[in-house]
Amino acid sequence: MIETPYLLFLGDAPDPLAAKVAQGIRDWRPEYAVGQFRMDGCKADLGLPDMDLAEAKAAGAKTLVVGVANRGGVISQAWKKVLVTALEEGFDLASGLHNLLRDEADLAAVAEATGRALHDVRVPEVDYPIANGVPRSGKRCLAVGTDCSVGKMYTALAMDRSMQAMGMKATFRATGQTGILITGEGVPLDAVVADFMAGAVEWLTPDNDADHWDLIEGQGSLFHVSYSGVTMALIHGGQPDALILSHEPTRAHMRGLPGYELPTLEALRDMALPLARIANPKAQVVGISVNTKALSEDQALDYLEQTEKRMGLPTVDPFRQGADRLAQALAAL
Amino acid sequence: MIETPYLLFLGDAPDPLAAKVAQGIRDWRPEYAVGQFRMDGCKADLGLPDMDLAEAKAAGAKTLVVGVANRGGVISQAWKKVLVTALEEGFDLASGLHNLLRDEADLAAVAEATGRALHDVRVPEVDYPIANGVPRSGKRCLAVGTDCSVGKMYTALAMDRSMQAMGMKATFRATGQTGILITGEGVPLDAVVADFMAGAVEWLTPDNDADHWDLIEGQGSLFHVSYSGVTMALIHGGQPDALILSHEPTRAHMRGLPGYELPTLEALRDMALPLARIANPKAQVVGISVNTKALSEDQALDYLEQTEKRMGLPTVDPFRQGADRLAQALAAL
Repeated sequence: MIETPYLLFLGDAPDPLAAKVAQGIRDWRPEYAVGQFRMDGCKADLGLPDMDLAEAKAAGAKTLVVGVANRGGVISQAWKKVLVTALEEGFDLASGLHNLLRDEADLAAVAEATGRALHDVRVPEVDYPIANGVPRSGKRCLAVGTDCSVGKMYTALAMDRSMQAMGMKATFRATGQTGILITGEGVPLDAVVADFMAGAVEWLTPDNDADHWDLIEGQGSLFHVSYSGVTMALIHGGQPDALILSHEPTRAHMRGLPGYELPTLEALRDMALPLARIANPKAQVVGISVNTKALSEDQALDYLEQTEKRMGLPTVDPFRQGADRLAQALAAL
Repeated sequence: MIETPYLLFLGDAPDPLAAKVAQGIRDWRPEYAVGQFRMDGCKADLGLPDMDLAEAKAAGAKTLVVGVANRGGVISQAWKKVLVTALEEGFDLASGLHNLLRDEADLAAVAEATGRALHDVRVPEVDYPIANGVPRSGKRCLAVGTDCSVGKMYTALAMDRSMQAMGMKATFRATGQTGILITGEGVPLDAVVADFMAGAVEWLTPDNDADHWDLIEGQGSLFHVSYSGVTMALIHGGQPDALILSHEPTRAHMRGLPGYELPTLEALRDMALPLARIANPKAQVVGISVNTKALSEDQALDYLEQTEKRMGLPTVDPFRQGADRLAQALAAL
């Protein structure tokens, strides 16, 4: 578990998109984001107070989160100076970068000497069990997509926000790097060894109050041949009571797989539901989330309305409309 | 790749079952098994010539294979003496044990000093790619089971034997520890990191002659919630043209999962085929293999006949009957 709150390190981000992990934390867990640390030339701005390390320390920050993609896979010397100083001043470091903090000899040495933690959230830190399939108390919801990167994490976070606002008991359960940095904990599922994937999801979503919902961050797609095994482990380890179908309507082919068409929402429903019912016979498809970013407002609303009529399920774009209707669908179960 | 042929180390096996990995090598690759090494008190006997290390060396053996399960997860001192001497006399070592050869300081030191290899086949040795889903030349067959441990490996090995005898081009592709020790190469799929599972299967079954069949060793089951993600990766990474349904008809519940009933063969067919067609639209279910070990000969033949009639597919027990009819089903495709 990563200690909160955070100082968000934006480094020398060449554009706002490079800081999208920090932006996600700021958007979804503003209470964790006490400030931003920007270096000369930084082109990103989260609208948070700019702080140096001492100011952030005084404001209560515990962990410096590298919330920016680095260039060329190298942690630059310019960054290093800040990161080393942060360790020396009592911050832990957390990062979702491909190149690991722990593999940098100087950072590892200073962390060791100062007793601070280096959190590389791409690396599993737990010996997960093999899944046992035993039914668990509490309820769980999983978004499954027609493709990768269609908004499954965003959907779960938006539902969490709606449910908190409605006074429902809910917890967002992170299964990817960005989700883990947003919440401070989770399972980096794509890095877990095959035999333990479903067990890791069981571990992440334990017994809970009967009226509590775990909102499990989805990964991959049953229809994406590179990652479908990860999706399968989420469906069987997660034992979801409720499935949300997630879709992006303008994509020409499956992400990274020219020659593979996206399935219809009907095909996704018909594939995912029988698989989910192996682990949870009461599983139901309760709603649809659509990422309509590529459509105009009129097109988007028309698409959502047509889809809702066709599928007979509440259909929303959580970004344009919020996820209240999906939260209500869970409440109605 | 493990160098062949092998001297099979049976150690102090307390019973024949403890040596089942060695038995598998002896049964399926007799040309790799030049002899057996038995210690005092060994209760297993493969019917191979008993050899000491010098005799095995003279007979051409390259690798000493630990073909026996050890007791209590410890590599005993009695074994160690043989293993160290084998390294010194020029053998590589190979093992599928949970506790790794490389984690034994003395073995690691001697292997280093002598330049010999320690093959722990539970550990992936390759940086597998992420699956790209590109169609491959050649044909592939995969056995999918109603449960784990219903005879999928045995089915693929028996089909390989039948196809070789019929003059067909075929290669058994190992995805588990026993299969890898039998053939000397393969992918330990249950130990591969989630994101690379399907890519590892693609790597294992590359482009081949148009009339060549890869017989991919199955793992887990789509209906086994602990391991279904691994099965999914085999279906999508393997791009099978042909599926064999595998079943054991007397099991009371899914292996290790009380409370989970086995699916019917119809349910397995209806789940596996649409998933397989995502990666290979021409995929077909071509036959059924049943492990009838728990049935009498009469019961078995009756069950096979009834199942064949019901499902409309050639149905055999490869152990009782051989796999010729399954091989013919592939030839007819």
